[in-house]
This record gives sequence, C-alpha cells and structure tokens, in this order.
Amino acid sequence: MEAFFTFLEKRVDDCSSLLCIGLDPHVSDLKEPSPASALDFCLNLIKQTAPYAAAFKPNAAFFEVFGAEGWTALKQVIEAIDEESKRLGSLIPVVLDAKRGDIASTAEAYAKSAFETLGAHCITLSPYLGKDSIDPFLNYPEKGVFLLCKTSNAGSGDLQDLSVVRADGRPPLPLYEHVAKLAQQWNTQNNIGIVVGANHVNAMKRVRAAAPDLWFLAPGVGAQGGELEAALNAGLRKDGKGMLIPISRGISRAENPKLAAAEIRDQILRIKREINR
Amino acid sequence: MEAFFTFLEKRVDDCSSLLCIGLDPHVSDLKEPSPASALDFCLNLIKQTAPYAAAFKPNAAFFEVFGAEGWTALKQVIEAIDEESKRLGSLIPVVLDAKRGDIASTAEAYAKSAFETLGAHCITLSPYLGKDSIDPFLNYPEKGVFLLCKTSNAGSGDLQDLSVVRADGRPPLPLYEHVAKLAQQWNTQNNIGIVVGANHVNAMKRVRAAAPDLWFLAPGVGAQGGELEAALNAGLRKDGKGMLIPISRGISRAENPKLAAAEIRDQILRIKREINR
Repeated sequence: MEAFFTFLEKRVDDCSSLLCIGLDPHVSDLKEPSPASALDFCLNLIKQTAPYAAAFKPNAAFFEVFGAEGWTALKQVIEAIDEESKRLGSLIPVVLDAKRGDIASTAEAYAKSAFETLGAHCITLSPYLGKDSIDPFLNYPEKGVFLLCKTSNAGSGDLQDLSVVRADGRPPLPLYEHVAKLAQQWNTQNNIGIVVGANHVNAMKRVRAAAPDLWFLAPGVGAQGGELEAALNAGLRKDGKGMLIPISRGISRAENPKLAAAEIRDQILRIKREINR
Repeated sequence: MEAFFTFLEKRVDDCSSLLCIGLDPHVSDLKEPSPASALDFCLNLIKQTAPYAAAFKPNAAFFEVFGAEGWTALKQVIEAIDEESKRLGSLIPVVLDAKRGDIASTAEAYAKSAFETLGAHCITLSPYLGKDSIDPFLNYPEKGVFLLCKTSNAGSGDLQDLSVVRADGRPPLPLYEHVAKLAQQWNTQNNIGIVVGANHVNAMKRVRAAAPDLWFLAPGVGAQGGELEAALNAGLRKDGKGMLIPISRGISRAENPKLAAAEIRDQILRIKREINR
C-alpha cells in the first residue's frame, strides 16, 4: 500500500499539474440554495476540470450547512470523482477540507468519517491540539493530512505569527515556522503536508527552509491576492513538486471552467520551467 | 436578545448546577453501531439527566461518523433537548462540540450549520486562524463560542505550552495564556468562553488570572484524570460561576445515569460552598 504523497505524486506526473480544484459550493454561487444545486455545481466542475486536476478539494462547510442532505451530496461528490478517475485511468486524490482537530478518541471518529464513511484520501487538520490529535489519522498509512501552518487569511497573524522561544537559546521563531518544523519531524510515513498561504511569500520561504521535504497546500492565489509566480518561486521543492495550488472561484466563476483550469495548469507549468532554467 | 452567557447563567441559577452533560455516542458504548442506536443513547441520557444539566454538549464527530443519517440524529438530539427544556420550563443551552476553525467565508457556513441548520446555542472553535475566523460566529449575538485554549489531552503541550515572546519585553507567556488574554480582550459581547482542561490545574490558575471574566469549559474530570476539587479551586470565578464541567462517560456508563448526574451536581455544590467559606 503506497503512502498518500506517493499516490499524489503519481497523479501529478500523470496530468502534469499542481492544480487542486476547490469544490466550494458557496450558496451565493448556486442556482438555488439547495443540496441538489450544490451537487450539480460540483459534478459540473468535476466533469469539466478533471483532466487538469492533480487533486480535488471539497470544502465540508458548504455541504454541512445543508445538514444531512448536504452530507449525502458530499459523499456523492467524492464518488463522482472516483468515477471520473476510473474513466481517465488515473486516480485523482480527494482532499477533504474540513480543518478538524480534537482529542484522540474523538479524532478517531473524525478519521473514520473522512476516510471510511466519505471515502476521502486526505484531510486538512488543525495542529492546535498536538501530535496525539493527529495520530488517529496517521494510523491510516495510505491516507494523508495537511496541517494548518500559515493560513491565507488576514487574521492568521493573531496566533501564527507569534514569536516562540526556542529551547536551545537561538532567536525566537514564528509559531507557523515551529509548526512546519514539527510537521517535518512528524512526517515519518510520507503522509503529512502543511497548509501555507500563497499570499504570504516571505512566510512561505521560511517554511520551505524549515520543511524542505513536505508538500504544501497553498491557498490564496486569486481571490485572496496571492501571486502565482512569487508563490511557486518561494515554495516549490527542488524536484519541482511539493506544492498543490487550490483554486476555487477563479475556475468555478469563469465563463468556461474547463478552459480556465487548463490555462492555470499551463501557467504553472510555464512558471516551473522558468524557475528550473 | 440576551447574550449567550447571560442565557447560560440563568440556566445555571435555575438548576444550581455547573454540570455539562457530554453526549458522546461513541460506537463502543452503543448497542449496535448505528445512528438509531446513537440517537437512543442520547435521548435516554437527556431524559435522565436534564434536571441536573446546566448545558448539554453533543460531540459532532460521533454523529458525523455515521454520515447523513448521523447528522439527522444530531439534529434530533438537539430538538429533544429543546423539548425537554420546555417540559422543565427552563431552557437548557446546547454546546455543539465541533472544534471548527476556517477562514471567514467558510466560517460563515459553519456558523450557519451550527446555529441555524442544527439549532445549537454555542460551539467550540479552534483559535489557530485568529479573530477573523471567529467573527462569523460572533455575528450571532445571542449565540456563544468556546475557544480552545489549554486542552485536556497529553499532546496539548506540543503547541499550547510553547513560550511566546511579549511585545512589551516582559517574560514570555505560554501560548495558551496568550490565547486566554486574546479571548478576554475579544469578548466585548459576552459570548466568548474558553476550553481549559480540568486536569491542568496550574494552567487553569494562570488562565483564570489572565481572563478573570470568562466562562471556562473544563473537560478532563474523570476519564482524563482531572480532580474536581482542585479544578474548581483553580478555575471558579469570584461569583462562584464561570466553569462548566463536562462529564460524558462518568455519567453515561454509570449504572444509574440520573443518580450519577445528581451526585456530581451536588458534589460541585458542596465544593463551591467549601471554597466560599
């Protein structure tokens, strides 16, 4: 059984893409505020963009808001991605964007919910409760997690930018950099990545130095003002991988989402080639 | 419209209790692993313990694990609490233990899910994303939030105990204490409390000094080794309120849950009287 990031890298190679299609059926983007409309919105995006998707990232909140029917729709979305994967002959990972984080006995239930009940391959988690709150997810060796490190929102500085004293007397580190170091250290099974906002380029440089091996999920391009080129320059690993760029509205609101996805995929490829040169 | 903690204090006065009944239908405690069995488990606990409950705290994970049917059960649990409240003539707050935390546009959907779709009165949240991730919940002025501060699990030290440098040059503070200070400062509408493990007595003393006004949700009594007396001594406000003591298995696994709840309620009262003396 392969580790999650081995699986992701296979898909990245298959589609020459670092693009992660965000499935955010925000009510303001739906024809009507219903779970059926949320499902339609996602199925259409999946069908149009799958060839360019290194991964899909459904956001649990926009389904949860519809209660039980929303959860049924979320499960159907994940099943539809699996179907599309089979059709394409290349399995596309599903990253459930849920940002859960609880004590171990509860985390076990969240892990079962994400990985078994829903069938996702990876989940976003908060690191605030520490390693023992992550372990129940890591106990699924073929599944993955992305730990929140430096998030793309303005308020991320409230906690994540705090300076943390180091035990060895060296100068203090921002909390997010400490989290990156912990994640790098905890990643003994190739199934831990981190979330680093693409709009925080300096933070991304520090985090890449602190965690040279990890995959980053890097939101914030487009809607939140992140510049793709600067972000890739700061965050790509030496092998030209290590970053998933999630885009939601930039694709779903485009006149032609298929074309928009293809263009962003190609733009990332061009920038990567430029960096390698 | 009254603020959440005004509402909670009314209920605390009505039932002379600081006991929060945890509704954790963990699969190992159910007759069979089904949402129907989870619902039965909770309905029985609600019926037996409501007179002694300052609040009920259903844990989202143990419902979520059953997918859509689990969410239906969760909604039914909250409705049953409202029914029981009407029967008793005293509204019992429902704290949804969900530990969500996401950027504002997503947090809006989580807030709507918890407060409108499910009908909870309060929710537990992670502070890791900062103030702007909390605001969508605070925009419901009659609802409340408990921010994770110092959690009861062993791994809580990984991040929460890190020493944070202070801008004014005074000695560094543990991260959890910084979070407590932020919460105290953000609580301008009497709708923010914090989660402080009852098993971390020294941390609780520091947090009470840092946040003299806030309500604490203090898990960890019983299953996680917290001593009730030491915790109440460290955490009660001067008015003898300010702490909700959640108990789950200590009541649900008792031979007679009604009696167990009554006894813990009375034990808290005795300790409070002792402290006041």
